[in-house]
Order: sequence, then structure tokens, then C-alpha cells
Amino acid sequence: MLSRLAVALVHHPVLNRHNEVVSSAVTNLDIHDIARTCRTFGVGHFFVVTPVMEQQKIVEQILEHWLHGYGSTHNPDRCSAFQLVQTVADLETARELWSEKHSRPARIIITSAKSPQGLNGQDCRSLLEEESLLLVMGTGSGLAPEITDQDFATFQSISGVADYNHLPVRAAAAIILDRIFTGRKF
Amino acid sequence: MLSRLAVALVHHPVLNRHNEVVSSAVTNLDIHDIARTCRTFGVGHFFVVTPVMEQQKIVEQILEHWLHGYGSTHNPDRCSAFQLVQTVADLETARELWSEKHSRPARIIITSAKSPQGLNGQDCRSLLEEESLLLVMGTGSGLAPEITDQDFATFQSISGVADYNHLPVRAAAAIILDRIFTGRKF
Repeated sequence: MLSRLAVALVHHPVLNRHNEVVSSAVTNLDIHDIARTCRTFGVGHFFVVTPVMEQQKIVEQILEHWLHGYGSTHNPDRCSAFQLVQTVADLETARELWSEKHSRPARIIITSAKSPQGLNGQDCRSLLEEESLLLVMGTGSGLAPEITDQDFATFQSISGVADYNHLPVRAAAAIILDRIFTGRKF
Repeated sequence: MLSRLAVALVHHPVLNRHNEVVSSAVTNLDIHDIARTCRTFGVGHFFVVTPVMEQQKIVEQILEHWLHGYGSTHNPDRCSAFQLVQTVADLETARELWSEKHSRPARIIITSAKSPQGLNGQDCRSLLEEESLLLVMGTGSGLAPEITDQDFATFQSISGVADYNHLPVRAAAAIILDRIFTGRKF
């Protein structure tokens, strides 16, 4: 059974390294990696969020290859991961779609490299018993204030052991989903 | 302080999807992602293992760019991750180097997508109090019997919630290092 948790990977509005609001380009490997991680942990849906039509088309071409083209028979495992993927223009559309799916408002949980006091995996597991969640990850240098200034809960940042704070979003997604879905003490 | 744990990413001997022993090609993004994850968690060293000279040269070129070329000033955070990276021809060389570094034999711990009963993060943390460890990840479809048939301990595989068993090695590395170094209950 698929989880009540969905993931949204946001390409706009995000920050670049100069703290400017930009639309980042879709990265083929982000979609592959995060789709495979979502599929591993039973995540219900993976929204790729970009308002840029050309970027949406790129994602649709990738999906076409893996869902219906040569990739679907050459690598069926990849096909099954890509079945979770859908492009949407903005985060609100992702939330509406995920809310409709469960006939109740989905709660947004944003992620950040700078929120040591946020929710942890156990908190999210508890919420999932009652609610559907949309876990939001930013590309570039992270989600822009237009999103982070809203009253959303935040997942506890991955602090590592030093001051280095530059995990790839692909790695952060893997760690956060493991913390939510595995939830044992290691 | 850097950890007594090092990571080795093996490109030979590994299996392809037809269960044949091959040398896989080095993937630029594996090196970026795993180096950044290692740097986040304070991993001591990241060995890229390939006996193919041309492949070693590719890695050296990547390192040159990020350690001394344009990348070193354009993105110093990436530079600091790449300082952990070293190419070696085989796993035994990686173990020798890592053993020399700590003046004691490093223990090899292999990873696999098919070892539900292996060591967990807590076990590795306990071992690290006394020993230096070399955590070995395979590319392609995993480490070949030449390695797995030896008497090495194995890290518990990441099982997810379904029968899907196709995490990217980049994601598996992130999850395993988080389980070892974060080690709290989520």
C-alpha cells in the first residue's frame, strides 16, 4: 500500500547561491534518484514542481521514455519508480492534487538545511496516522521566502557532524525518507 | 575531527544486471554526491576503486578541477568535499592505505541490497570506538563474489517497505552514513 506521504521537488521559487529567487533547471538525475528512493519507501507520489513549460516538457519526455518507450521494457524497475512522478506548475497545485487523492487537506512539511528544531521522523510517522503529508524539498540553494515565510512545519535539518551543510537534495531526500519510514534505532 | 571510517566505492569487481563480473564506468555524480555526504558526516576518506587507468585519469581530472582549477574558487564547498577523494586500483590498496593511516588493520564492512541480518549503525559506532573501518559500496548491480565470498562483515541492507530493491548507490551511501553517524531514534 502506498503511503499518505508525497514528495514535492520545487524548482520555483528557490534561491540561488546569491540569495536571489530563481527558477532552477530540472535535473534528470534528481528525478531518477528521488523517484527510486520514493519507490523504495512506499511514498505515494512524487511531484516535480516547475512553472516553466519547457522544463515540464523535458520531464514529460523523460517520463514517456521510462513509462512507455524503450526504457519501460529495458528497465522495468525504473518504470515502476517513474509511475510515481507527475509535473505540476506550483506547490499549491501539488497540495490540491494530493488533498483530493485523500479527500482531506494535505499538510505541507518543508525541508531546510537550517532548521535544527523541526519535526523528526517519529513526528511525521505520528502525523501520517491521521493526515496526508506533502514533504517539500527545494533545489538550488533551497526554498525561497515565498514558501518558507508561510506557516508550514519544517523537518529537522540534517546536521552531520561538522559545519558542512551542502548535501545534495538527492541525498537529503534519501536520509529524510529513511528517518520517516524506517524509524528504528540504529 | 575526521572519523575512523572511510568509504570505498568499487567499480571492479562488480556485477552487471546479467550477473556477470565487470568493471563499471566511473560516474561523475557518484563522486560528487558521495564526497559531499562523506564530508557532511565527517567521514575520513573516500576511495574510488577502479583498476582501469583511463577511468582513474577521469577521476583525477575531476579532482584537479575542483581542488586546484576553476571549481576550487567558484565553489569552495565542493572543493572541501573533494579533498577526501582518492583513486586506488583495488580494494586491498584502499584497506592498506586506511590501515597505515591509523597504524592498525582497518576492518572491511561490505554493503549489499540482500543482507537483512547484517550490522546496523549502532554496531558500526561501537566498532569505531576501537577500530578503523572501511565501508565498501558496489556500483553496477553490486559487489562481485570475489569480494562478497570473503569473510567480511556486512551492513544490514536497506529494506524499505516493499519488495523494491533498487536504490541508487548515492542514496544508499547517504542513508547508511546517516544511520552510522546520526544514530538517534527518529
